[in-house]
Amino acid sequence: MTGEGAGSAAGLRAAGAIDGGRLWRRLEALGRFGATATGGVCRLALSEAEIAARRQLVGWARDGGLEASADAAGNLFLELPGEAPELAPVLTGSHIDSQPSGGRFDGAYGVLAGLEALIALKEAGIRPPRPLVVAAWMNEEAARFAPGMMGSKAFCGEWPLEQLRAVADAEGVTVGTALDAVRAAEAGLPERPLGFPLAAFVEAHIEQAPLLDRAGVPIGVVTGIQGTRRYRVTVTGVAGHAGTVPQAERQDAMMAAARMIAALDRLAPEVPGLMLTVGLLRLQPNAPSVIPREAYFSIDIRHLDDAGLATADARIRAIVEAGAAPCSVRLEQIAEAANLTFPEAMQRRIAAAAAALGLPARHLPSAAGHDARHLNGVCPTGMIFIPCRDGISHDEREWCRPEDVAAGARVLAHVLLDLACNPPPPPSRVG
Amino acid sequence: MTGEGAGSAAGLRAAGAIDGGRLWRRLEALGRFGATATGGVCRLALSEAEIAARRQLVGWARDGGLEASADAAGNLFLELPGEAPELAPVLTGSHIDSQPSGGRFDGAYGVLAGLEALIALKEAGIRPPRPLVVAAWMNEEAARFAPGMMGSKAFCGEWPLEQLRAVADAEGVTVGTALDAVRAAEAGLPERPLGFPLAAFVEAHIEQAPLLDRAGVPIGVVTGIQGTRRYRVTVTGVAGHAGTVPQAERQDAMMAAARMIAALDRLAPEVPGLMLTVGLLRLQPNAPSVIPREAYFSIDIRHLDDAGLATADARIRAIVEAGAAPCSVRLEQIAEAANLTFPEAMQRRIAAAAAALGLPARHLPSAAGHDARHLNGVCPTGMIFIPCRDGISHDEREWCRPEDVAAGARVLAHVLLDLACNPPPPPSRVG
Repeated sequence: MTGEGAGSAAGLRAAGAIDGGRLWRRLEALGRFGATATGGVCRLALSEAEIAARRQLVGWARDGGLEASADAAGNLFLELPGEAPELAPVLTGSHIDSQPSGGRFDGAYGVLAGLEALIALKEAGIRPPRPLVVAAWMNEEAARFAPGMMGSKAFCGEWPLEQLRAVADAEGVTVGTALDAVRAAEAGLPERPLGFPLAAFVEAHIEQAPLLDRAGVPIGVVTGIQGTRRYRVTVTGVAGHAGTVPQAERQDAMMAAARMIAALDRLAPEVPGLMLTVGLLRLQPNAPSVIPREAYFSIDIRHLDDAGLATADARIRAIVEAGAAPCSVRLEQIAEAANLTFPEAMQRRIAAAAAALGLPARHLPSAAGHDARHLNGVCPTGMIFIPCRDGISHDEREWCRPEDVAAGARVLAHVLLDLACNPPPPPSRVG
Repeated sequence: MTGEGAGSAAGLRAAGAIDGGRLWRRLEALGRFGATATGGVCRLALSEAEIAARRQLVGWARDGGLEASADAAGNLFLELPGEAPELAPVLTGSHIDSQPSGGRFDGAYGVLAGLEALIALKEAGIRPPRPLVVAAWMNEEAARFAPGMMGSKAFCGEWPLEQLRAVADAEGVTVGTALDAVRAAEAGLPERPLGFPLAAFVEAHIEQAPLLDRAGVPIGVVTGIQGTRRYRVTVTGVAGHAGTVPQAERQDAMMAAARMIAALDRLAPEVPGLMLTVGLLRLQPNAPSVIPREAYFSIDIRHLDDAGLATADARIRAIVEAGAAPCSVRLEQIAEAANLTFPEAMQRRIAAAAAALGLPARHLPSAAGHDARHLNGVCPTGMIFIPCRDGISHDEREWCRPEDVAAGARVLAHVLLDLACNPPPPPSRVG
């Protein structure tokens, strides 16, 4: 055992061993898997691009002396063994799947910062008392398979594996089929059981909102995660020829959907603090001279107050109901996550690590959802944010400054060693 | 020369030689190219399914003693030679491309009824004084490549071949590339020049509206074609994370499009007789947790009165302009076709043929667009309608009764022979 507590000599040595240049180059290199022509990334969950990126991660991990493994839900693990392998590990990580036109930092940063932290510890000759593990969680983004955060939900026991495997993408390919292809491509990787005891989890991530960037503060101590609900709406009408079916006799699924979405657009400002997005819409058959027989769209709401979510929920259900006639409509709520607060003790450790390294930090909530939400249900969990330019994310223009990228990894290395030396008490929960 | 005038012995013999069972079986057989699991057809223009269907048509034509050829715009021709091959032929036909979930009769009926008419004449030993030709026009539907009726527009000199070849589908494949693949697949087919003199054109088609079906009348004498305008609207906003960009700072392309489309929904009943359809909408990037940066949609309007079209046009432009902010918008009009009346003389010949065959007929306009619109600019043109059940078309439930299918082909055979014997004077046009 070589280090203890915030500001310990070993912790400072671990942070000092972070190679910011190497981390930056790896962010750039990983961004070439699924790179788009216009500077972003399209690396959908379990796609060929993601499988190739996973192979690169395993290669870097092995080069750095770490051990790679995976579980049945497609979560990838890169482990720095501890002095006592039987002790529950401290976990870090995030995800490497992306939005269809996403950026190079969302998710990838947390995985590569974790990898850099473990390799830095190893290079500095620091052997942690318990194992340190980087996770790359399967399908955080929900861009190909919905809902998202599938890997962390399965790991934490919230979703049975068989339910997850049955989910299909827009082309009808199931998660199960895609997972089997990943498994075949990674035949040499040992399999880890789905869900194992953890001492703690810390996720590093870009903020995806503009607070840190505007304030010029490099480190965010995340207080919790904004609540969210997600819905799927399926409007069913009757197809027909655009030139021959009299307007009054139509059951036009596009027009019914437009009435609903325009009403949702008016609703948003009426509930202060509400974020409301219709990000996906598909028509059937989607041809200029055919009256659409089906419109399928998503609704995503977020609010920092659960009461705000409940208000919006009731209004949304009324709007969808009111806009449907003469079509029929089905609204399914596919995800619900209440507002969440990370343990004070975890927030304190992250703040102390930043202070020990002389890095300004600010406490702030996460407006976006993260795998940390699910890990928080099974072990003490915290998150470290770094700024991203103008808060832009889920877009190819997403960008972070190299000095912030390195600073976040230094805080992470310090916190991970601290947690490995002094694991927090497990959460006491009711129910 | 074997027949002359409506009700001539040869005309009645030609009509009597129609084999309704064979025509029905060929409609069923052609429907297997691109058949969907739920009873319809997805046979997009120049797709593999359409190429295979064209091969089948050529096979049937050659078996029946007809000659097949094609032109550089992908129009396919099946010819019954006449006594005087130097005389301008009488043309019939329609198209065999379909909507993404279309029916088995739209377009295919006109091509197969024409094929049956020519084979019936040949089998009855009737040699027309001038050639009779069936055309299958390229890309009538505009489902894969927009706008539609490309083949007939190119044939009639309305669109230069190079402009047509440059149009791309949603995957970026151009008409030119697709045409070259068709040409390679049909290497044995003689090439015909693009546009040749015609004595007349008659198109048989299903009504696609419910008038004949409700009246129980088997034959429609088409008086003209309803006017139409088509637009493409591209709304450009800014992508962003659904959970982090404050509602007031968003430039959400979906919400702007929904405001416009909901306003178009309210516009439709305010212009009596207007048909208005938004049949196609695509979002970019189209993911549930990303604010859409682009929404692209079609607007199709039709009206039996050109003044109604002009009124709707002005209102549409105002609606699109008003709904855009804070996004930007571009509206392009991609097609405009005024209301059209077919020559009285052609209507009279069709009505006389129906009367000679003892088939009830009704004069009515076409609410849908057809290739006959463009042929009407180069030669005397008419159309024959048969009923379709409940007027349903552009849908897999499209259906016609076998007796109506046969009746329409009998009228067509009678009219084609009449026109071949007594060609109408060419249209005199101003300008």
